[in-house]
Amino acid sequence: MIVQEMEGGITTPSGFSCSASKGGLRKSGRNDIAILFSEKKCSAAAVFTTNRLKAACVLVTAKHLSESGGRMHGAVINSGNANALTGEEGLRNAVRMAETAAAELNVSPAEMAVCSTGIIGVQLPIDRVVEGIRKAATALSTSREAATLAAEAIMTTDRRIKESALTLTLSDGRKVSIGGMTKGSGMISPSMAALHATTLTFITTDAPVSQQYLQSCLESCTRRTFNMISVDADQSTNDTILALANGAAGGPAITADPAFEKGLEKVMWQLARMVAMDGEGETKLLTVTVEGAASEEDASAAALSVVKSNLVKCAVFGSDPNVGRIASAIGNSGATVDFGKLDVSIGPEGEVPVIAGGLVTGNAGEAAHLMSGREVFVVVRLNMGVFSSRAMGCDLTYEYVRINSAYST
Amino acid sequence: MIVQEMEGGITTPSGFSCSASKGGLRKSGRNDIAILFSEKKCSAAAVFTTNRLKAACVLVTAKHLSESGGRMHGAVINSGNANALTGEEGLRNAVRMAETAAAELNVSPAEMAVCSTGIIGVQLPIDRVVEGIRKAATALSTSREAATLAAEAIMTTDRRIKESALTLTLSDGRKVSIGGMTKGSGMISPSMAALHATTLTFITTDAPVSQQYLQSCLESCTRRTFNMISVDADQSTNDTILALANGAAGGPAITADPAFEKGLEKVMWQLARMVAMDGEGETKLLTVTVEGAASEEDASAAALSVVKSNLVKCAVFGSDPNVGRIASAIGNSGATVDFGKLDVSIGPEGEVPVIAGGLVTGNAGEAAHLMSGREVFVVVRLNMGVFSSRAMGCDLTYEYVRINSAYST
Repeated sequence: MIVQEMEGGITTPSGFSCSASKGGLRKSGRNDIAILFSEKKCSAAAVFTTNRLKAACVLVTAKHLSESGGRMHGAVINSGNANALTGEEGLRNAVRMAETAAAELNVSPAEMAVCSTGIIGVQLPIDRVVEGIRKAATALSTSREAATLAAEAIMTTDRRIKESALTLTLSDGRKVSIGGMTKGSGMISPSMAALHATTLTFITTDAPVSQQYLQSCLESCTRRTFNMISVDADQSTNDTILALANGAAGGPAITADPAFEKGLEKVMWQLARMVAMDGEGETKLLTVTVEGAASEEDASAAALSVVKSNLVKCAVFGSDPNVGRIASAIGNSGATVDFGKLDVSIGPEGEVPVIAGGLVTGNAGEAAHLMSGREVFVVVRLNMGVFSSRAMGCDLTYEYVRINSAYST
Repeated sequence: MIVQEMEGGITTPSGFSCSASKGGLRKSGRNDIAILFSEKKCSAAAVFTTNRLKAACVLVTAKHLSESGGRMHGAVINSGNANALTGEEGLRNAVRMAETAAAELNVSPAEMAVCSTGIIGVQLPIDRVVEGIRKAATALSTSREAATLAAEAIMTTDRRIKESALTLTLSDGRKVSIGGMTKGSGMISPSMAALHATTLTFITTDAPVSQQYLQSCLESCTRRTFNMISVDADQSTNDTILALANGAAGGPAITADPAFEKGLEKVMWQLARMVAMDGEGETKLLTVTVEGAASEEDASAAALSVVKSNLVKCAVFGSDPNVGRIASAIGNSGATVDFGKLDVSIGPEGEVPVIAGGLVTGNAGEAAHLMSGREVFVVVRLNMGVFSSRAMGCDLTYEYVRINSAYST
């Protein structure tokens, strides 16, 4: 398998166009509407938030996915307003967004996904949104720049545009591309499953992929990528990942190909990493690797528990090797652990042991030095089995508190 | 049932003495050792942390409780060091603490509980601790002042001394007292159960209570009080509540009396409330009441999910009525909710509706005003059933980040 990472985004795979426009949802007056579109109908797969409060757009997209039999043309997206906790009017507005885009693009409404992100509990100014969608529909482009404009339009408190792309060679020799864009900065602790979204992520590929296989790949890649990141342990009402495979690369449909799944996971991991790095108030990326767990579930639970701990996050912010907090977070994860066997070390390759055989080593100075960089790596060895997992998060900072204590008003 | 709250603490019930001394664990040189003692042997009950990483003192106290058949004389306590993640040496040190106190007080080591709180992963300077325990053992007093000195000695980052006491009339007319002290400010998200505990809480009563009934009352009261508070959703390795009933009030042993359980719950709720109000960096106390849940578990899960949400906590700090975050936290709790029926209001009695029938009302200004006070009250009505619950927490502030980004070094 040859994977070639490249500068790119959702228009890197053939046949995908996109655009951005102003729907009047942002005080700053920047673009807040985006459309993603493929002339060729796509296999469509999605995973959604498992929060029981699901935004209107999540409910409507799930319905459209089902009504279309997983065959869709694209998505219409707005930032600045989550269209969540908006009752019947919210549902009507989400449907109206899909209908407006569909009418402009000559497809059926059920063939368009709808995604929203922003404040909860406020009705969309639907007339301005409809106008914005109509403008965007006339501006579709397959250019590299269009992808970046779309990725910018879906941002909320994000500081950075998040795109990723690669080309890969399938097992049968065909070359295909996968591209993606994502947004997300706060309320990030996804736990997405089939029918369950505020990180919004859009994956495009020109590979011909059967809908069933696309859904199954998306679910397993989500479990290993987006569901392993946490900014603030608050799962959103809107999290959605939508994958569209338009088959523009030609040839028979893929129903199983490890090369494709590896490529998809790589793009999704890059995007998830960008979300963790852009966590609200974030100054440091925290990556926790757990090895030697008795099961994959134990490995994931322990890794996530460490990246989610406020006390660990504050210690990372302060470059403070307060390793007892790491051990305590592992103890709270529910994973099977014999603390007499626990090894914890700091550094990309676990260079500096800080806990060995369940006892704290004297390496606090070295560890503090390694923790003062832009990226902090914690390697946990449970020595209980052969399973491993990796989670990503960020530090908890004054800036996080500032951003989130003055958001809606 | 007549309950008379009063100024008091662990020496308010007859027959309990205590003292404090310096064990050299604090840079500040303040008292860091405390002893609680009853000449009369007590029925003893305890609940401990459910963190799988349990401090040495937790393991030793659980063992002593079992070896003594739940018949104990008191406890020896240190602050400044948690004696957790300290391996075999830590266990030997915890036993040594009990043995030292027991020898001075002419009781068996298994009749003394051992509790520690402070930094994780550092061995106790046991020689100084032993010396401190010996000093404390010679200074025991039943005075009101002694109780306050003990309550001060067990503090870590706490800003306030936490004591409570009341007298009550049992169903048969006898008058008894219940007193308590607690500490806790960070790493507070207790989920204590029988054999499981850094909030340390000590309850004394001169009521004669059977050991079994004391344990059962302690467990049910813990579920409704300490387990319903959260400062930072990080459960400690050391949480312990120890209840001692010495029977000094005389008369036959109580094996069931709602009056006693009510009194115990009241003291424990007061103490739990003091812990929430003293949360690290706290400027506002947050009380969330959930009514109309389909089950008690749903009510508790929903209430706790709201007080634990970082986004809600930041909004409370900023007096920002970002009510969508409250709804989202309820959605993440796992409770059965029909969001079309959801009512949320702000104020002690729920005076200002902010969500009604699943829709956000236009009362943001009024709500912001009510949120600017020292205490913030959120009342959630799920309208799904008849069960209710109440949880307490605090805001997430710049000061929380400051305290926890520079703690160990």
